[in-house]
Formats: sequence, structure tokens, C-alpha cells
Amino acid sequence: MTVGSFASATGVVQVGEHRWKGDVPPGWDIAGNTNGGVLACIAARALLEATGRGDPVTLTAHYLAPGRPGPVEVDVEVVKAGRRFTTATAVLRDASRPLLSVLGTFGELEDPGSVLVDGDPPDLPDPESCVLVPATETFPPPFMGRVELRLHPDDAGFMSGQGSGRPLVRGWFRLLDGEPIDTVGLLLASDAFPPTIFNARLPVAWTPTLELTVHVRARPTPGWLACRFSTRFITNGFLEEDGEVWDGDGRLVVQSRQLALVPRG
Amino acid sequence: MTVGSFASATGVVQVGEHRWKGDVPPGWDIAGNTNGGVLACIAARALLEATGRGDPVTLTAHYLAPGRPGPVEVDVEVVKAGRRFTTATAVLRDASRPLLSVLGTFGELEDPGSVLVDGDPPDLPDPESCVLVPATETFPPPFMGRVELRLHPDDAGFMSGQGSGRPLVRGWFRLLDGEPIDTVGLLLASDAFPPTIFNARLPVAWTPTLELTVHVRARPTPGWLACRFSTRFITNGFLEEDGEVWDGDGRLVVQSRQLALVPRG
Repeated sequence: MTVGSFASATGVVQVGEHRWKGDVPPGWDIAGNTNGGVLACIAARALLEATGRGDPVTLTAHYLAPGRPGPVEVDVEVVKAGRRFTTATAVLRDASRPLLSVLGTFGELEDPGSVLVDGDPPDLPDPESCVLVPATETFPPPFMGRVELRLHPDDAGFMSGQGSGRPLVRGWFRLLDGEPIDTVGLLLASDAFPPTIFNARLPVAWTPTLELTVHVRARPTPGWLACRFSTRFITNGFLEEDGEVWDGDGRLVVQSRQLALVPRG
Repeated sequence: MTVGSFASATGVVQVGEHRWKGDVPPGWDIAGNTNGGVLACIAARALLEATGRGDPVTLTAHYLAPGRPGPVEVDVEVVKAGRRFTTATAVLRDASRPLLSVLGTFGELEDPGSVLVDGDPPDLPDPESCVLVPATETFPPPFMGRVELRLHPDDAGFMSGQGSGRPLVRGWFRLLDGEPIDTVGLLLASDAFPPTIFNARLPVAWTPTLELTVHVRARPTPGWLACRFSTRFITNGFLEEDGEVWDGDGRLVVQSRQLALVPRG
């Protein structure tokens, strides 16, 4: 059996009663910093093993320091193991410091169906007509060589210095080589796209994430995911980024929100 | 100096290196269960003391079991004390079980101003023209006798069995007796209103909260807060409730989202 590169990059091994270890391979970084979603996925896999559950239902990660390729440890504490859900916390550390603090509730997602759906998947051209976010030619290739992102042409202008003027990024996401995506992978999809702010034509550049909360609403069908990220408020040094991820059956599989910092000066 | 009833209800005393105690007074409950926001505020006060910070910036609470009036303990762990922010976790317990698991990042909110505000406070009639959510005649009065909620007349129909048909609840919030509200009080405002679902004319009734995340975007000015809560997706046994809280100066002071459970059957 071949293990996909995402499953391999986020895999964990239990090394103590409450401790798991992982190993971030090179290539899942951007400018040397490991993608935050990858770190959240590593923590989530440890939390799923510790709780014995199948899916993250709601997971919040606070980002404490940038990660680098290399070994990490995840210390897990189960706060409550209930009949239907288990709630647990985790801290992910590298050799020198904590990188991520996580609180999540885990369970088994079922599909009893929808009562209210006041929204639609983003209106995207076919993936072939969207704009591939390319890997750079460095080796190993950085994050964009590990997942496939194809942006709505209207939202890809920032790549050539022509931001749309709207803090909106829509596009397709999938893992490479046909690797199927699980509900942990949805955490990656929620933190994989370029910042909305790149399109905003505002005097705001790099926006480090303080906090990311992902509600996983359903298990995704295999294939492309249609994603939409938008920002409404940039105030007092903070901005939010709201995400929706829809699967190929047109079902909402994720609602996410992150709080990011607008650097001063 | 008079301590307001909200400050008193949510006050904590340090009783160990990492432990604080509180005491939920009667009257902050609904049908016997302590309002979840009150529990989150107690935990937040312990976290602020432990971190030495002034404001919750982003706080996530997972609700594990209903609270009752009586003593509670809060165990706090500081994960990272940084230059600008401190991140910490807490578990709030009563004598028999954990009630709340919390992860938050704390700091000092400043007001360098707004870069983008794509939204407005809800369009509410004056508080006097809105519908007071009354306290019942039991003594001590339940939660609605401890805070003042005045609903938009268009969103108050559920109180007489005539829900609007839209999962939307807008209204004014303030503490009683002119007690000023701090950024901890904003956590209460974020979890004080009747569920949006009460207006939805759907076969869904009680919706216990699994998780609440509050982004505190600014310190509020004294006086009424204009609040808006809405739901777009009721799918696979879950619903979200998105909140915005605006202060009297027309500034967004909170963005919140909770994930609630739609009971089966």
C-alpha cells in the first residue's frame, strides 16, 4: 500500500502515554516556515489516536511560533471522553519551543442530511480554466508543490501585482497524485490558500495567523474541493478570514475562521 | 466601591499556583443550567489573572456539561508567554466533573483604527421600541433578570409562537444597573441571546452549544451593545451561529461563532 505524501507528512507515532511524535518533511513550507495547516494536521492525528475517534468535529489551533521541517512532539490531554464526543487539548513542540496549542472535539461524522443551506459553492470555472499556483523551482519544492491550488482567474491577479481590490480568494484544492482527502486533510484545505489580503490593494502585507477554528461539517467525497475565503473587517490590528469548503457533491464540508495579525508600522 | 452583579458573579480568587476558584450565584441560569457565557467569563477572569494581560483577544470554549449555581474551580496552564500575547488553556470544573475546556490568547487591545469595515451595526429601533426579554417571576430571577436584552420586534415573534421564519436574532444588550462592560463581558454578550433557531420555523428545538469562539476586536464604550446572530447552515446534525457585537460608537467589538448540536430524533 502506498502512503500518500500528505498522510506521510502528517503521520504520528505514539512514544508515551500522552505523547506522539511526528516529522515534518521538507517541502511543506513557504519561505522556510512550515504551513500552519500541516502542523494542525499533525496535532489532529495525535488527537484522533488519543481519543479513538474518527473525525475532528471542531478544532481550534493557536499559532505560537513558525515551524521548520524536522521532528515535532505532540502532548495530548483528554479533558472529557463522552458517549458521542471526546474533547482534548494538545501542544505541538519542536526541539526548542511550543509551536501550536490546540483544543478540539472529536467524534464520528454522519450524514443525516441538511435542514437549511443558505449558501452555495463558489462559482468557479473548471479547474483547467483556473490559475495554477505554481511551485517555485527550488528543490525540494515548497508547499505549493505539495498540494494543487487553482485560483479563480478573477482572484489570481495578485500573482502579477494586480490584486482584484476585493479581499476574496476562491479556488480549487486537492492533494497530489489522487491521494484521497480525509477530514484531517480538510484542516489543510482551510489554511492552504494565499491570504485574502493579497487581493485587497491595502497597505497590509504579511498577516501571521493567531488562531484558526475549523468546523468540519461532513466527510468529503474524493476529488476537487471548491473553496472560498473572504475578509470583512480589518480593524485595530486584526483581520478575520472566513472560509467555506464544498465537496464535489456540492455539500459544505468545512466552515472556518481565522484571526490574523496586521503587523504594525 | 460597589461591585456590579456581573463582576461579582464572574469573580475569581487564586487558590493555588495554577488554580482559581469561583462561585456561580443563583440567578444566572436558564431552567437550572448556568448560562454558558457566564462559565466562559469565569474561566476568562482566571486566565487574565494567570497571564497578567488585560483583554481576551481570541477565546474558544468547548462546553462539556451544564453548570449549576455553586462553587467551581479553574485550572490554568500558560502555554506561551510572548512579548505581545500570552496563550493559555483552562479547564473549569464543578465538584464532580469538567464543564468547560478553554483555549485563549490574551493581550492588550489598542485602537489604531480601521482599514476595512465591510458591514454595519444591525438596524435596530431604539431600545425603548424593542421587545424586552422578561425575567420570569421565580425567585431568584433566572438569567434574563441579570442582563437586559431587547430584541428587534421583527425577531421577537418566537416569544409568542410566531417565529419570523428566518434564523436571525438582533437586539440590544447591556448589564443591569449601569454596570460598565469590559472585554470579558463581551463574552457574555456573545452567548446571551435566544438561539437563532427559535425563529426558523424548523423541526429543531433545543440546540446545545459544543463550541464557542469569540474574537474580541475592541474594548467597548459604555452603554448598549447592538448585536446580530444568524445561522446559514443546519447540516448533518450541526448548526453554526455567527455573531457580531457593535458598541455605541458604531465599532465592531466582537465577531463570534458557535457550533451547536441539533439533537437527533
